Amino acid sequence: MPDAHNVTEPAAPLGDGGLVRLRMAIAYDGTAFSGWAVQPEQRTVAGVLSEALVRVLRLGPDSADLGLTVAGRTDAGVHATGQVAHIDVDGAALMATRSSHAGSDPDPVPALLRRLGGVLPPDIRVRTIERAAAGFDARFSALARTYVYRLADHPSLINPLRRVDTVAWPRELDDGAMAAAAPGLLGERDFAAYCKRREGATTVRGLQALDVRRAGDGVLEVHVRADAFCHSMVRSLVGALAAVGEGRKPVEWPASLLALGERANGVAVAPAHGLTLIQVSYPPDDQLAARDAQTRRRRA
Amino acid sequence: MPDAHNVTEPAAPLGDGGLVRLRMAIAYDGTAFSGWAVQPEQRTVAGVLSEALVRVLRLGPDSADLGLTVAGRTDAGVHATGQVAHIDVDGAALMATRSSHAGSDPDPVPALLRRLGGVLPPDIRVRTIERAAAGFDARFSALARTYVYRLADHPSLINPLRRVDTVAWPRELDDGAMAAAAPGLLGERDFAAYCKRREGATTVRGLQALDVRRAGDGVLEVHVRADAFCHSMVRSLVGALAAVGEGRKPVEWPASLLALGERANGVAVAPAHGLTLIQVSYPPDDQLAARDAQTRRRRA
Repeated sequence: MPDAHNVTEPAAPLGDGGLVRLRMAIAYDGTAFSGWAVQPEQRTVAGVLSEALVRVLRLGPDSADLGLTVAGRTDAGVHATGQVAHIDVDGAALMATRSSHAGSDPDPVPALLRRLGGVLPPDIRVRTIERAAAGFDARFSALARTYVYRLADHPSLINPLRRVDTVAWPRELDDGAMAAAAPGLLGERDFAAYCKRREGATTVRGLQALDVRRAGDGVLEVHVRADAFCHSMVRSLVGALAAVGEGRKPVEWPASLLALGERANGVAVAPAHGLTLIQVSYPPDDQLAARDAQTRRRRA
Repeated sequence: MPDAHNVTEPAAPLGDGGLVRLRMAIAYDGTAFSGWAVQPEQRTVAGVLSEALVRVLRLGPDSADLGLTVAGRTDAGVHATGQVAHIDVDGAALMATRSSHAGSDPDPVPALLRRLGGVLPPDIRVRTIERAAAGFDARFSALARTYVYRLADHPSLINPLRRVDTVAWPRELDDGAMAAAAPGLLGERDFAAYCKRREGATTVRGLQALDVRRAGDGVLEVHVRADAFCHSMVRSLVGALAAVGEGRKPVEWPASLLALGERANGVAVAPAHGLTLIQVSYPPDDQLAARDAQTRRRRA
């Protein structure tokens, strides 16, 4: 075994022809992407990332082989600083990417990071790439996703350097009222009122945190954490809270909508560009596989 | 005096034909500007701002009348979140900008803020505008200017959402070594080594703070405060500190250059887009005029 230099816990030895799972942390400015998921004729995060991976891994043009799997399928215009994804790569192909010059790292994975930086456009970066621990699945092992939504609700708060990820809200918002409306939404609930309906899919989600606060620059930030989100859920929650913040709706209103059991007409969906996926949480390595199995059972 | 509603300390009553000085806080993304100062055929911050002010103040096309005066004349590509400027406007012309409908504010100044927001392009915002206190001069009353320079010195630190104001540095930097090099540069010194020479101009400046630290996102930030800066000084200081951070120069090297008394050849000027003017400091209102006089004496 000439390649047994992998002291850092390989899930399977490299170079034996088996598949190696690589875990990536990814950040992107969603402005010029039609969301995460590959769509024909559209520039998508998954599409651009797959192309770059195929290049640095020197694979054939069929990127579907990679099995690129993501923790949070963000919509068009939504950003990420803490997105997580995985791919499965043939171990022998991975070993073949190693630089041949003397003194190069026997592990081919670290070199991929800078190579990806050289190939990716500036609006997307792979921030870390490493061999995944056994049982890791970017989507099904995740415990929670955390998003932040940024609102500049006064001209004095608008910073042109942050205009890509901050919404200029035309009216001042009462952050105290919004914060008071938040606790009533927490817990394992049916969020049908806040979801775009998909036939046959459950709209029950576990909302773990919903915090409204002013950042250091005075911008109003809504931090939201849940086990998972249905489509447009964070932006709908922000829209409902903003209605309270403007004084158009009472503090009790956002929670009262949960009883509807269907999409609420009065809830505006806040603009996409204020939203950023900032973190995906996973259990300790020895619980990854169990979490994966549990999530799959629930979704089935 | 029908317009004597100005309870908030007017330097001179409005509407009597005298000049009224307006103080503005300004933020801009410097990417698409050829710096602050008006230049023919160039898109500059002062040029774009003057045009917008002329429009909302309903003045003639000759914007030179405004006497737009700024605290820090930033170079091409440099940003600002805390820039300060003033203009002098004819009081009667200012009163004439008031909306005529019933219930409108008797003070014409607050309405200018949202009107400017409607006229300015998205890469520049006026964040506040108010009547200046007596003796205020955006340039000569200032006590200090504070800049921050942001360096992402590892692929894991690069955030595409901050790529406009953060330099991706190709090598890792030892922030401890950089911080150790900083104190030797503090104080009232001849910064000729760090300045682009201008005939007849002094290069003596008072460097009040030079702090090297990691921000919450891991990005290396250099915070620099001085009474004033000569041309390219902050970016040259960052270039010298980065040479220490890379281990190419000893910790003592940046301070040792001060003895040269002329531009140091070995100092690289760090890229413009990592630099942002974040604050301009002024004395209490009753000392504004004295500070103005003191600064003018020193420059003469």
